[in-house]
Amino acid sequence: MADYHPAVSRETETDPPLWFDVHLFVCTNRRPDGHRRGSCAARGGEALRDYMKARAKEMGLKRVRVNSAGCLDRCEFGPAMVIYPEGVWYRADTREDIDEILATHVRDKGRVPRLMLTEKDVPPGKEKG
Amino acid sequence: MADYHPAVSRETETDPPLWFDVHLFVCTNRRPDGHRRGSCAARGGEALRDYMKARAKEMGLKRVRVNSAGCLDRCEFGPAMVIYPEGVWYRADTREDIDEILATHVRDKGRVPRLMLTEKDVPPGKEKG
Repeated sequence: MADYHPAVSRETETDPPLWFDVHLFVCTNRRPDGHRRGSCAARGGEALRDYMKARAKEMGLKRVRVNSAGCLDRCEFGPAMVIYPEGVWYRADTREDIDEILATHVRDKGRVPRLMLTEKDVPPGKEKG
Repeated sequence: MADYHPAVSRETETDPPLWFDVHLFVCTNRRPDGHRRGSCAARGGEALRDYMKARAKEMGLKRVRVNSAGCLDRCEFGPAMVIYPEGVWYRADTREDIDEILATHVRDKGRVPRLMLTEKDVPPGKEKG
């Protein structure tokens, strides 16, 4: 997947305006204990989702939505989340990670490279080709 | 919100490539029966999500992911879904609606205006200002 980099297909002249400026999806999928891939819920995704929702509200971020999502299929690198429309993925393990993503990426429109998933973070068996 | 139309903030030079070209989130939130806002699950969101996942697979669509999501907060217009990175929202009521969204929007990169939610579809009490 590393060489594939499409332009965003948004038709800004005719599509309705974005409903949320920042739409953040946190994987809260849970697999049975002992599953070889694990799951984001087993890695703490639900508590991090709850914290992120509460913090975003406390910070007064407008036009930002934090949602739960089903399995995002990057389980091995979770707890996984993705921020749209930019399509940037993160792994967060702690509340401090969440705080940094909210402050640096969501509020300040920057990036948190140390937590970002990249095209190199490919689950076993999901390699291209 | 109608006058607000930001550019997509994707930094295509430095952000990792999109992991999914089309990432579709179907609201499957369920509220108790009789809630004034209703909910997408009560309107059939779960069955439509299941059908959409299966149809996307049957159609052989690559780099497309259909996920469940928690409450997208446009309950009154549900079953609601949103497609990223373009951030276009739809309401689907039937399997035929799902087929049309998959064929026209996801596969052919078009739009299905008759099913699209716009900036005019504002839940009561959520009006701007």
